[in-house]
Amino acid sequence: MSDAPKTMNGAESVVRSLHSAGVDVCFANPGTSEMQFVDALDRTKLMHCVLGLFEGVVTGAADGYTRMARKPAVTLLHLAPGFANAAANLHNARKARVPMVNLVGDHALRHQKYDAPLSADVEAACAPFSDWVKSGTDAGSFAADAMEALRVATGKPGRIATLIAPADIGWDEGGQMAAATAPDGPAPLDLSALDDAVAALESGEKTVILVGNSVLEDVAAIALLEGIAQKTGAQILAPTSSRRIERGQGRAPMAKVPYPINEAIACLAPYARAILIETLPPVAFFAYPGKPSLLLPEDCVQVTLTDVDGDGPAAVAALADCIGAQPGKGQSPEMPARPQSGAITLQNIAAALSNALPEDAIIVDEAVSCGGATFPAGDAARPNSWLALTGGSIGIGIPLSAGAAIACPDRPVITIQGDGSAMYTIQGLWTQAREESNVTTIILANQSYEILKGELHNVGAQPGQDALDMLNLDRPHLDFVALAKGMGVPGRRVEDVADLMRAIEDAAREPGPYLIEAML
Amino acid sequence: MSDAPKTMNGAESVVRSLHSAGVDVCFANPGTSEMQFVDALDRTKLMHCVLGLFEGVVTGAADGYTRMARKPAVTLLHLAPGFANAAANLHNARKARVPMVNLVGDHALRHQKYDAPLSADVEAACAPFSDWVKSGTDAGSFAADAMEALRVATGKPGRIATLIAPADIGWDEGGQMAAATAPDGPAPLDLSALDDAVAALESGEKTVILVGNSVLEDVAAIALLEGIAQKTGAQILAPTSSRRIERGQGRAPMAKVPYPINEAIACLAPYARAILIETLPPVAFFAYPGKPSLLLPEDCVQVTLTDVDGDGPAAVAALADCIGAQPGKGQSPEMPARPQSGAITLQNIAAALSNALPEDAIIVDEAVSCGGATFPAGDAARPNSWLALTGGSIGIGIPLSAGAAIACPDRPVITIQGDGSAMYTIQGLWTQAREESNVTTIILANQSYEILKGELHNVGAQPGQDALDMLNLDRPHLDFVALAKGMGVPGRRVEDVADLMRAIEDAAREPGPYLIEAML
Repeated sequence: MSDAPKTMNGAESVVRSLHSAGVDVCFANPGTSEMQFVDALDRTKLMHCVLGLFEGVVTGAADGYTRMARKPAVTLLHLAPGFANAAANLHNARKARVPMVNLVGDHALRHQKYDAPLSADVEAACAPFSDWVKSGTDAGSFAADAMEALRVATGKPGRIATLIAPADIGWDEGGQMAAATAPDGPAPLDLSALDDAVAALESGEKTVILVGNSVLEDVAAIALLEGIAQKTGAQILAPTSSRRIERGQGRAPMAKVPYPINEAIACLAPYARAILIETLPPVAFFAYPGKPSLLLPEDCVQVTLTDVDGDGPAAVAALADCIGAQPGKGQSPEMPARPQSGAITLQNIAAALSNALPEDAIIVDEAVSCGGATFPAGDAARPNSWLALTGGSIGIGIPLSAGAAIACPDRPVITIQGDGSAMYTIQGLWTQAREESNVTTIILANQSYEILKGELHNVGAQPGQDALDMLNLDRPHLDFVALAKGMGVPGRRVEDVADLMRAIEDAAREPGPYLIEAML
Repeated sequence: MSDAPKTMNGAESVVRSLHSAGVDVCFANPGTSEMQFVDALDRTKLMHCVLGLFEGVVTGAADGYTRMARKPAVTLLHLAPGFANAAANLHNARKARVPMVNLVGDHALRHQKYDAPLSADVEAACAPFSDWVKSGTDAGSFAADAMEALRVATGKPGRIATLIAPADIGWDEGGQMAAATAPDGPAPLDLSALDDAVAALESGEKTVILVGNSVLEDVAAIALLEGIAQKTGAQILAPTSSRRIERGQGRAPMAKVPYPINEAIACLAPYARAILIETLPPVAFFAYPGKPSLLLPEDCVQVTLTDVDGDGPAAVAALADCIGAQPGKGQSPEMPARPQSGAITLQNIAAALSNALPEDAIIVDEAVSCGGATFPAGDAARPNSWLALTGGSIGIGIPLSAGAAIACPDRPVITIQGDGSAMYTIQGLWTQAREESNVTTIILANQSYEILKGELHNVGAQPGQDALDMLNLDRPHLDFVALAKGMGVPGRRVEDVADLMRAIEDAAREPGPYLIEAML
């Protein structure tokens, strides 16, 4: 902080204070009301500023950055509509408990009472997608508000903290540096819950251990879970989607609760006991006529060893200690045979990915309807970090990859991306090109909102042409190679599984982004 | 209504009731919680269903449709994140007082208490961007709620009405047809305000008549305003942006309040009296250090002849009658000389557009930083309807055009589109291709958020490289011809003004969409 000037405006005090607390990346799509932040970022040169051409790219990238960097970025957004554009990927980050600090510009305080074109109730717009919202009131307290946002965001579990920034408190002089304060630590382990969990494992009844969030990011915890499973016969399961799982050869394979409702119910039907560690009781993605909302059997005895605000890895260690389990050896499945030439199918895609995904890759999974087929590749492939869509709001894959690549410039990033979902935030390819990120985007082009065809069936409908016209994307065909070219990302189309593997291997070796349109 | 079946589910009752009240287009980006609507739309075949690949396309298109069809469409959106994606263009529609009815799916009522991935407070998410929000409660009353939404939306002034649709009340049987009820009519003319307006015009002081919304859509009202101006010397001005102005040869030219703050203040500085007809007192787009928020001089005497809930054309007619003004003759400016070959510049673009824009065109104006240069073309061109970005939230042009073309399939649509703003909702090109709309998109490619450079200057900053990197779009270059090709829209790049004119003329003559990337 010693470098801070004696006098500065509010915007500069926020930038300097956040940076002194370790925030050094700003994902931005600024407008007029954020110009004093653009100026402060420019003059201080303290943060890496990453421009997104659409706000959903900004927040998706901030999420991907934070999942990999294990510390938050700050986003810079423009008034209520800019926040709304950003909100879907904030929703996803919030469900993943990924910490994030948003700075949302607003009109100058004196201007807010008028019906200017961009005036709206910014606080009301931010609240439904934030865990904490405050509107700054003056230049002198602006940095302290930013530090409080950071404290809230980084507490356990991670939260979305949104600080509204009226333009004038940014440009007014009188900014004061503010120091970081310690965030909330995890809730302490409940020892009676630990006793109950041990009892479940020793009950002789079929037991499932459902683990989420930071447990899945921790290779030591994953190894201990493998040991617990081997010792007790319990099944370990991750939620349907998780912010990050450390997977691959030499690590324990990680199964998950399936997305399709009937498969999810069948998966959990055998269990008389369930132990929950940093995750909530599994619930159906959607409700369906005649199906339950909660997925565990009604008579399953559940123990919450830690809630989402607890320290999951510590709970796993305590549980392993109680039952005398040692870390497992990481019995990942064998690498499947490399598929020979032929069409790319849901049957051969996992084997193809397992063989082609590079060492130490970051895999971003927005495969949607292909996700059941592609997920197993993460266990058989070389070691990787597997990042998934957590809030069900499609359009995260391309931005998430852009952000992950900024956090880890030395690791290859591979995006497994459905075509329909790709189109929500396709603009993120431009950010990948601008940042020269080593991201390979694999578009799984089935040319439809394929997953919705199953969902239409689930509500009892027999689709006719008008319904199919709202689910099919083949009129006109989307040409993702052309779209990528339009944003400075080279690419190619592949129709053969051997070509797909070669294209992945080539692209991951080369620096910079690449797009592979894989025709299914 | 006689064709309605005796029993139907809630979704079908909503579709049938809305259709019986004249709603026959549905703009949609549905998900699982809307499958019963997809099914009902499919089985009834009552509405033209238009798919957008992103929700901002859906609401922007619904807005464009309504501006031209003069009746609302219905939108179909997916939960809180889907609504958030749609919200920026709802913000724009709301500022324009364009009526719209949104159906936003939510989880089934019994499912809402769980932390499912897509669960969120849908009502809180919708409220800041809607004038009316209700969550449906049961299948039997669902259609009546939809009719109330339609009544609210179509009352004067137009409103955004959002009906939240829990999945189960859509699929439950017991749907009941509901009849339309009459919307609010306009507020009656205030006769003392009429006296004050007449007094202003007869005061001998410099007077401006600011007119908005339905006045600008009404060729008879525009002609009467011309007559009033000729008789009294008053200046007629439109707001900085308007939902629709009937312009072109044989109609009165229509000046507007400029966007740049200094020009706006200078434009209004001469006036001692102001008469407001269906518009609010003009306010600066943004606040700036040392500049006023309200644009009329402090000592200007203002008369609100009608507020935005009044009947502006009737007020204009009453005012003309009081002062004995006849309709003007439509003294539009002469067609400028056709520019010869040379670079496309802000100096020659209005003349080029004036010559090239086809008869009876719908012009969609999201030129942003080029808007000052291109706006005059609307007066000199052949008769046209001129639709602008009304709420300042960029990313409306391409969707607005898609919707306008569906309302008026026999009129050519020309979009004058900034490059930065195009990227927010570029997905709308696919909808134009799918619907085979005769839309010509002219991208004005200056490869920057050019308007923000002026805004940075307005807050007193001298931009360095980091600031320019957040405003420039030239690393990498965006290739809009490739982007269009990726979505099934043919196009070409032009660098010469004569080529630009020929390309517009060719594209407007040919059916189907086309994109012209005009390099500035």
